[in-house]
Amino acid sequence: VKDFFLKNALRVSHLIMQKELQAGAVVVDATCGKGNDTLFLANLVGETGRVFAFDIQAAAIELTREKLEQHNCLKKVKLIQDSHEKMDYYINELVDGVMFNLGYLPGVNSNLITLPETTLIAVDKALTILRLGGILTMVFYPGHKGGQAELDMVRDYLSSLSQKEFEVSQLNFINQINNPPQLIIVKKLRRGNI
Amino acid sequence: VKDFFLKNALRVSHLIMQKELQAGAVVVDATCGKGNDTLFLANLVGETGRVFAFDIQAAAIELTREKLEQHNCLKKVKLIQDSHEKMDYYINELVDGVMFNLGYLPGVNSNLITLPETTLIAVDKALTILRLGGILTMVFYPGHKGGQAELDMVRDYLSSLSQKEFEVSQLNFINQINNPPQLIIVKKLRRGNI
Repeated sequence: VKDFFLKNALRVSHLIMQKELQAGAVVVDATCGKGNDTLFLANLVGETGRVFAFDIQAAAIELTREKLEQHNCLKKVKLIQDSHEKMDYYINELVDGVMFNLGYLPGVNSNLITLPETTLIAVDKALTILRLGGILTMVFYPGHKGGQAELDMVRDYLSSLSQKEFEVSQLNFINQINNPPQLIIVKKLRRGNI
Repeated sequence: VKDFFLKNALRVSHLIMQKELQAGAVVVDATCGKGNDTLFLANLVGETGRVFAFDIQAAAIELTREKLEQHNCLKKVKLIQDSHEKMDYYINELVDGVMFNLGYLPGVNSNLITLPETTLIAVDKALTILRLGGILTMVFYPGHKGGQAELDMVRDYLSSLSQKEFEVSQLNFINQINNPPQLIIVKKLRRGNI
Protein backbone atom coordinates (compact mmCIF):
# COMPACT_ATOMS: atom_id res chain seq x y z
CA VAL A 1 0.00 0.00 0.00
CA LYS A 2 1.35 3.40 -0.98
CA ASP A 3 1.01 5.54 2.13
CA PHE A 4 1.51 8.93 0.51
CA PHE A 5 2.05 10.58 -2.84
CA LEU A 6 4.44 13.53 -3.19
CA LYS A 7 4.38 14.24 0.55
CA ASN A 8 6.78 17.18 0.73
CA ALA A 9 9.34 19.25 -1.16
CA LEU A 10 12.36 17.36 0.14
CA ARG A 11 10.93 13.97 -0.79
CA VAL A 12 10.13 15.15 -4.33
CA SER A 13 13.69 16.47 -4.69
CA HIS A 14 14.92 12.97 -3.81
CA LEU A 15 12.51 11.34 -6.29
CA ILE A 16 13.77 13.64 -9.03
CA MET A 17 17.42 12.88 -8.27
CA GLN A 18 16.64 9.15 -8.28
CA LYS A 19 15.03 9.52 -11.68
CA GLU A 20 17.66 11.77 -13.24
CA LEU A 21 21.01 10.53 -11.89
CA GLN A 22 22.82 7.46 -13.08
CA ALA A 23 25.43 5.37 -11.27
CA GLY A 24 28.78 7.10 -11.70
CA ALA A 25 27.27 10.59 -11.49
CA VAL A 26 29.19 13.51 -10.02
CA VAL A 27 26.96 15.58 -7.76
CA VAL A 28 27.01 18.43 -5.27
CA ASP A 29 25.30 18.69 -1.91
CA ALA A 30 25.47 22.45 -1.44
CA THR A 31 24.13 22.28 2.12
CA CYS A 32 25.34 19.34 4.22
CA GLY A 33 23.51 20.09 7.44
CA LYS A 34 23.36 16.78 9.28
CA GLY A 35 24.43 14.88 6.18
CA ASN A 36 21.12 13.25 5.28
CA ASP A 37 21.15 14.43 1.67
CA THR A 38 24.88 13.77 1.38
CA LEU A 39 24.32 10.16 2.38
CA PHE A 40 21.34 9.90 0.04
CA LEU A 41 23.44 11.18 -2.88
CA ALA A 42 26.43 8.99 -1.99
CA ASN A 43 24.21 5.91 -2.13
CA LEU A 44 22.56 7.06 -5.33
CA VAL A 45 25.74 7.57 -7.38
CA GLY A 46 26.98 4.04 -6.73
CA GLU A 47 30.54 2.81 -6.38
CA THR A 48 31.97 4.91 -9.19
CA GLY A 49 30.16 8.19 -8.46
CA ARG A 50 31.41 11.14 -6.45
CA VAL A 51 29.84 13.77 -4.19
CA PHE A 52 31.10 17.25 -3.30
CA ALA A 53 29.50 18.33 -0.03
CA PHE A 54 29.64 21.88 1.35
CA ASP A 55 28.87 23.45 4.68
CA ILE A 56 30.34 26.52 6.29
CA GLN A 57 29.89 25.08 9.81
CA ALA A 58 32.46 22.71 11.27
CA ALA A 59 29.74 20.93 13.26
CA ALA A 60 27.82 20.13 10.08
CA ILE A 61 30.90 18.77 8.35
CA GLU A 62 31.66 16.63 11.39
CA LEU A 63 28.11 15.26 11.66
CA THR A 64 28.15 14.46 7.95
CA ARG A 65 31.54 12.76 8.18
CA GLU A 66 30.29 10.53 11.01
CA LYS A 67 27.13 9.63 9.13
CA LEU A 68 29.06 8.74 5.98
CA GLU A 69 31.58 6.66 7.94
CA GLN A 70 28.78 4.70 9.61
CA HIS A 71 27.47 3.80 6.16
CA ASN A 72 30.86 3.18 4.53
CA CYS A 73 30.35 6.01 2.06
CA LEU A 74 33.04 8.46 3.09
CA LYS A 75 35.56 7.65 0.38
CA LYS A 76 33.40 8.87 -2.49
CA VAL A 77 32.51 12.17 -0.77
CA LYS A 78 34.70 15.26 -0.69
CA LEU A 79 33.69 17.28 2.39
CA ILE A 80 34.41 20.99 2.10
CA GLN A 81 34.04 23.36 5.02
CA ASP A 82 33.47 26.60 3.19
CA SER A 83 30.61 28.64 1.77
CA HIS A 84 28.83 27.06 -1.19
CA GLU A 85 29.17 30.37 -3.01
CA LYS A 86 32.78 29.31 -3.63
CA MET A 87 31.89 25.94 -5.12
CA ASP A 88 33.53 26.74 -8.45
CA TYR A 89 36.82 27.19 -6.59
CA TYR A 90 36.69 23.56 -5.41
CA ILE A 91 35.03 21.93 -8.41
CA ASN A 92 36.86 22.02 -11.73
CA GLU A 93 34.60 19.73 -13.72
CA LEU A 94 31.02 19.63 -14.93
CA VAL A 95 28.55 17.98 -12.56
CA ASP A 96 25.35 16.00 -13.16
CA GLY A 97 23.29 17.31 -10.26
CA VAL A 98 23.19 19.80 -7.42
CA MET A 99 20.97 19.78 -4.34
CA PHE A 100 20.26 22.76 -2.09
CA ASN A 101 18.33 22.17 1.12
CA LEU A 102 18.25 25.62 2.65
CA GLY A 103 17.64 26.81 6.15
CA TYR A 104 19.65 26.15 9.25
CA LEU A 105 21.21 23.23 11.04
CA PRO A 106 18.88 22.35 13.93
CA GLY A 107 20.48 22.55 17.35
CA VAL A 108 23.72 24.12 16.25
CA ASN A 109 23.67 27.80 15.43
CA SER A 110 20.33 29.01 14.14
CA ASN A 111 21.71 32.54 13.69
CA LEU A 112 23.93 31.21 10.96
CA ILE A 113 21.23 30.80 8.35
CA THR A 114 21.86 30.83 4.63
CA LEU A 115 21.54 34.39 3.34
CA PRO A 116 19.67 35.34 0.15
CA GLU A 117 22.64 37.10 -1.45
CA THR A 118 25.13 34.28 -0.94
CA THR A 119 22.50 31.71 -1.93
CA LEU A 120 21.97 33.59 -5.18
CA ILE A 121 25.70 33.56 -5.94
CA ALA A 122 25.87 29.86 -5.09
CA VAL A 123 22.94 29.03 -7.40
CA ASP A 124 24.57 30.95 -10.22
CA LYS A 125 27.82 29.03 -9.66
CA ALA A 126 25.90 25.77 -9.55
CA LEU A 127 24.18 26.48 -12.86
CA THR A 128 27.57 27.28 -14.39
CA ILE A 129 29.21 24.00 -13.40
CA LEU A 130 26.09 21.95 -14.23
CA ARG A 131 26.45 19.93 -17.45
CA LEU A 132 23.88 20.23 -20.22
CA GLY A 133 21.03 17.94 -19.22
CA GLY A 134 21.98 18.23 -15.55
CA ILE A 135 19.50 18.81 -12.73
CA LEU A 136 19.35 21.18 -9.77
CA THR A 137 16.83 21.06 -6.94
CA MET A 138 16.29 23.62 -4.19
CA VAL A 139 14.19 23.17 -1.07
CA PHE A 140 13.15 26.37 0.70
CA TYR A 141 11.72 26.88 4.18
CA PRO A 142 9.56 30.02 4.05
CA GLY A 143 8.46 29.36 7.64
CA HIS A 144 12.01 30.00 8.89
CA LYS A 145 13.35 33.46 9.62
CA GLY A 146 14.46 34.95 6.30
CA GLY A 147 13.23 31.94 4.38
CA GLN A 148 10.53 33.74 2.42
CA ALA A 149 12.92 36.52 1.36
CA GLU A 150 15.43 33.91 0.23
CA LEU A 151 12.78 32.07 -1.79
CA ASP A 152 11.52 35.29 -3.38
CA MET A 153 14.98 36.42 -4.40
CA VAL A 154 16.02 33.08 -5.87
CA ARG A 155 12.65 32.63 -7.57
CA ASP A 156 12.92 36.05 -9.21
CA TYR A 157 16.39 35.24 -10.46
CA LEU A 158 15.49 31.78 -11.79
CA SER A 159 12.29 32.99 -13.46
CA SER A 160 14.44 35.37 -15.53
CA LEU A 161 16.52 32.56 -17.06
CA SER A 162 16.06 31.86 -20.76
CA GLN A 163 13.55 29.06 -21.33
CA LYS A 164 15.75 27.89 -24.20
CA GLU A 165 18.58 27.16 -21.79
CA PHE A 166 16.77 26.16 -18.60
CA GLU A 167 13.47 24.63 -17.59
CA VAL A 168 12.52 26.10 -14.21
CA SER A 169 9.50 24.85 -12.31
CA GLN A 170 8.15 25.34 -8.82
CA LEU A 171 6.07 22.89 -6.81
CA ASN A 172 3.82 24.23 -4.04
CA PHE A 173 1.80 22.20 -1.60
CA ILE A 174 -1.14 24.57 -1.64
CA ASN A 175 -3.36 23.15 1.11
CA GLN A 176 -0.75 22.64 3.83
CA ILE A 177 -0.77 24.94 6.84
CA ASN A 178 2.26 26.68 8.43
CA ASN A 179 4.29 27.69 5.37
CA PRO A 180 5.35 24.27 4.11
CA PRO A 181 8.73 23.83 2.40
CA GLN A 182 8.75 24.67 -1.30
CA LEU A 183 10.64 23.15 -4.19
CA ILE A 184 12.24 24.70 -7.25
CA ILE A 185 13.57 22.39 -9.96
CA VAL A 186 15.99 23.51 -12.67
CA LYS A 187 16.91 21.39 -15.67
CA LYS A 188 19.78 22.68 -17.82
CA LEU A 189 18.60 21.93 -21.33
CA ARG A 190 20.68 20.38 -24.06
CA ARG A 191 21.39 22.63 -27.05
CA GLY A 192 18.52 22.65 -29.52
CA ASN A 193 16.54 20.66 -26.97
CA ILE A 194 17.98 17.33 -28.18
CA VAL B 1 19.03 10.96 -25.22
CA LYS B 2 16.29 12.54 -23.10
CA ASP B 3 15.15 15.56 -25.07
CA PHE B 4 13.30 17.32 -22.27
CA PHE B 5 12.40 16.99 -18.64
CA LEU B 6 8.94 17.97 -17.38
CA LYS B 7 8.23 20.05 -20.49
CA ASN B 8 4.70 21.23 -19.74
CA ALA B 9 1.69 20.81 -17.48
CA LEU B 10 -0.15 18.37 -19.75
CA ARG B 11 2.86 16.08 -20.09
CA VAL B 12 3.36 15.98 -16.31
CA SER B 13 -0.33 15.12 -15.86
CA HIS B 14 0.22 12.15 -18.19
CA LEU B 15 3.38 11.08 -16.32
CA ILE B 16 1.46 11.15 -13.04
CA MET B 17 -1.40 9.07 -14.45
CA GLN B 18 1.09 6.55 -15.84
CA LYS B 19 2.68 6.29 -12.42
CA GLU B 20 -0.53 6.11 -10.39
CA LEU B 21 -2.95 4.05 -12.49
CA GLN B 22 -2.88 0.29 -12.86
CA ALA B 23 -4.31 -1.87 -15.61
CA GLY B 24 -8.02 -2.36 -14.91
CA ALA B 25 -8.44 1.17 -13.54
CA VAL B 26 -11.70 3.08 -13.92
CA VAL B 27 -11.02 6.68 -14.90
CA VAL B 28 -12.73 9.86 -16.04
CA ASP B 29 -11.76 12.26 -18.80
CA ALA B 30 -13.79 15.27 -17.74
CA THR B 31 -12.95 17.21 -20.90
CA CYS B 32 -12.77 15.18 -24.12
CA GLY B 33 -11.92 17.95 -26.53
CA LYS B 34 -10.36 16.20 -29.52
CA GLY B 35 -10.03 12.97 -27.58
CA ASN B 36 -6.28 12.95 -27.04
CA ASP B 37 -6.48 12.43 -23.28
CA THR B 38 -9.35 9.96 -23.70
CA LEU B 39 -7.21 7.83 -25.99
CA PHE B 40 -4.24 8.15 -23.63
CA LEU B 41 -6.37 6.95 -20.70
CA ALA B 42 -7.98 4.15 -22.73
CA ASN B 43 -4.53 2.80 -23.57
CA LEU B 44 -3.33 3.23 -20.01
CA VAL B 45 -6.08 1.23 -18.30
CA GLY B 46 -5.50 -1.84 -20.44
CA GLU B 47 -8.00 -4.42 -21.64
CA THR B 48 -9.97 -4.59 -18.40
CA GLY B 49 -10.09 -0.88 -17.58
CA ARG B 50 -12.85 1.58 -18.37
CA VAL B 51 -13.04 5.29 -19.20
CA PHE B 52 -15.92 7.73 -18.76
CA ALA B 53 -15.42 10.66 -21.12
CA PHE B 54 -17.43 13.89 -20.98
CA ASP B 55 -17.91 16.81 -23.29
CA ILE B 56 -20.86 19.11 -23.71
CA GLN B 57 -20.15 19.63 -27.42
CA ALA B 58 -21.38 17.10 -29.99
CA ALA B 59 -18.36 17.87 -32.20
CA ALA B 60 -15.96 16.92 -29.41
CA ILE B 61 -17.76 13.65 -28.73
CA GLU B 62 -17.70 12.84 -32.44
CA LEU B 63 -13.99 13.63 -32.83
CA THR B 64 -13.23 11.51 -29.78
CA ARG B 65 -15.34 8.62 -31.04
CA GLU B 66 -13.49 8.64 -34.37
CA LYS B 67 -10.11 8.72 -32.67
CA LEU B 68 -11.01 5.83 -30.37
CA GLU B 69 -12.38 3.78 -33.27
CA GLN B 70 -9.18 4.30 -35.25
CA HIS B 71 -7.23 2.88 -32.33
CA ASN B 72 -9.67 0.09 -31.46
CA CYS B 73 -10.35 1.55 -28.03
CA LEU B 74 -13.99 2.53 -28.30
CA LYS B 75 -15.47 -0.43 -26.45
CA LYS B 76 -13.90 0.43 -23.10
CA VAL B 77 -14.93 4.11 -23.26
CA LYS B 78 -18.35 5.46 -22.35
CA LEU B 79 -18.80 8.75 -24.22
CA ILE B 80 -21.19 11.17 -22.56
CA GLN B 81 -22.36 14.34 -24.23
CA ASP B 82 -23.27 16.42 -21.19
CA SER B 83 -21.64 18.82 -18.77
CA HIS B 84 -18.99 17.30 -16.52
CA GLU B 85 -20.71 18.95 -13.58
CA LYS B 86 -23.24 16.11 -13.85
CA MET B 87 -20.67 13.34 -13.74
CA ASP B 88 -22.11 11.84 -10.57
CA TYR B 89 -25.39 11.31 -12.46
CA TYR B 90 -23.62 9.03 -14.96
CA ILE B 91 -21.06 7.37 -12.69
CA ASN B 92 -22.33 5.23 -9.86
CA GLU B 93 -19.03 3.77 -8.69
CA LEU B 94 -15.75 4.95 -7.22
CA VAL B 95 -13.06 5.84 -9.76
CA ASP B 96 -9.25 5.64 -9.65
CA GLY B 97 -8.42 8.82 -11.52
CA VAL B 98 -9.87 11.94 -13.11
CA MET B 99 -8.28 14.25 -15.67
CA PHE B 100 -9.38 17.80 -16.44
CA ASN B 101 -7.77 19.57 -19.39
CA LEU B 102 -9.56 22.89 -19.40
CA GLY B 103 -10.01 25.53 -22.05
CA TYR B 104 -11.77 25.25 -25.36
CA LEU B 105 -11.87 22.94 -28.33
CA PRO B 106 -9.74 24.55 -31.07
CA GLY B 107 -11.60 25.29 -34.27
CA VAL B 108 -15.05 24.46 -33.01
CA ASN B 109 -16.74 26.99 -30.77
CA SER B 110 -14.32 29.06 -28.76
CA ASN B 111 -17.16 30.96 -27.09
CA LEU B 112 -18.13 27.75 -25.37
CA ILE B 113 -15.30 27.73 -22.85
CA THR B 114 -15.44 25.94 -19.53
CA LEU B 115 -16.78 28.34 -16.89
CA PRO B 116 -15.29 28.73 -13.40
CA GLU B 117 -18.54 27.98 -11.58
CA THR B 118 -19.37 24.80 -13.45
CA THR B 119 -15.73 23.69 -13.28
CA LEU B 120 -15.85 24.10 -9.50
CA ILE B 121 -18.96 21.94 -9.24
CA ALA B 122 -17.39 19.34 -11.51
CA VAL B 123 -14.21 19.22 -9.41
CA ASP B 124 -16.24 18.77 -6.27
CA LYS B 125 -18.17 15.91 -7.91
CA ALA B 126 -14.91 14.37 -9.09
CA LEU B 127 -13.42 14.45 -5.60
CA THR B 128 -16.57 12.80 -4.28
CA ILE B 129 -16.48 9.84 -6.67
CA LEU B 130 -12.68 9.46 -6.38
CA ARG B 131 -11.66 6.43 -4.32
CA LEU B 132 -9.29 6.81 -1.37
CA GLY B 133 -5.79 6.82 -2.86
CA GLY B 134 -7.16 8.06 -6.20
CA ILE B 135 -5.63 10.85 -8.26
CA LEU B 136 -6.98 13.95 -9.99
CA THR B 137 -5.05 16.23 -12.34
CA MET B 138 -6.13 19.57 -13.74
CA VAL B 139 -4.44 21.50 -16.54
CA PHE B 140 -5.32 25.20 -16.76
CA TYR B 141 -4.71 27.68 -19.56
CA PRO B 142 -4.36 31.11 -17.94
CA GLY B 143 -3.48 32.58 -21.35
CA HIS B 144 -7.01 31.81 -22.65
CA LYS B 145 -9.94 34.12 -22.06
CA GLY B 146 -11.28 33.42 -18.57
CA GLY B 147 -8.51 30.92 -17.89
CA GLN B 148 -6.84 32.86 -15.09
CA ALA B 149 -10.15 33.42 -13.28
CA GLU B 150 -10.93 29.72 -13.57
CA LEU B 151 -7.52 28.79 -12.16
CA ASP B 152 -7.83 31.27 -9.30
CA MET B 153 -11.28 30.02 -8.31
CA VAL B 154 -10.37 26.34 -8.42
CA ARG B 155 -7.05 26.96 -6.67
CA ASP B 156 -8.77 28.84 -3.83
CA TYR B 157 -11.22 26.00 -3.40
CA LEU B 158 -8.62 23.23 -3.48
CA SER B 159 -6.27 25.07 -1.12
CA SER B 160 -9.05 25.03 1.48
CA LEU B 161 -9.30 21.22 1.51
CA SER B 162 -8.15 19.43 4.64
CA GLN B 163 -4.57 18.25 4.32
CA LYS B 164 -5.56 15.14 6.23
CA GLU B 165 -7.92 14.15 3.42
CA PHE B 166 -6.22 15.53 0.32
CA GLU B 167 -2.73 16.37 -0.84
CA VAL B 168 -2.99 19.32 -3.22
CA SER B 169 0.03 20.59 -5.11
CA GLN B 170 0.57 23.03 -7.94
CA LEU B 171 3.34 22.98 -10.51
CA ASN B 172 4.31 26.21 -12.25
CA PHE B 173 6.80 26.62 -15.07
CA ILE B 174 8.18 29.86 -13.75
CA ASN B 175 10.49 30.96 -16.57
CA GLN B 176 8.17 30.39 -19.54
CA ILE B 177 6.72 33.38 -21.35
CA ASN B 178 3.08 33.87 -22.44
CA ASN B 179 1.16 32.43 -19.46
CA PRO B 180 2.08 28.77 -19.81
CA PRO B 181 -0.44 26.07 -18.82
CA GLN B 182 -0.46 25.23 -15.12
CA LEU B 183 -1.03 21.99 -13.31
CA ILE B 184 -2.83 21.17 -10.08
CA ILE B 185 -2.55 17.65 -8.69
CA VAL B 186 -4.89 16.25 -6.03
CA LYS B 187 -4.32 12.95 -4.27
CA LYS B 188 -7.19 11.67 -2.12
CA LEU B 189 -5.42 10.26 0.90
CA ARG B 190 -6.16 6.96 2.52
CA ARG B 191 -7.59 7.13 6.07
CA GLY B 192 -4.87 7.57 8.68
CA ASN B 193 -2.43 8.06 5.80
CA ILE B 194 -1.89 4.32 5.39
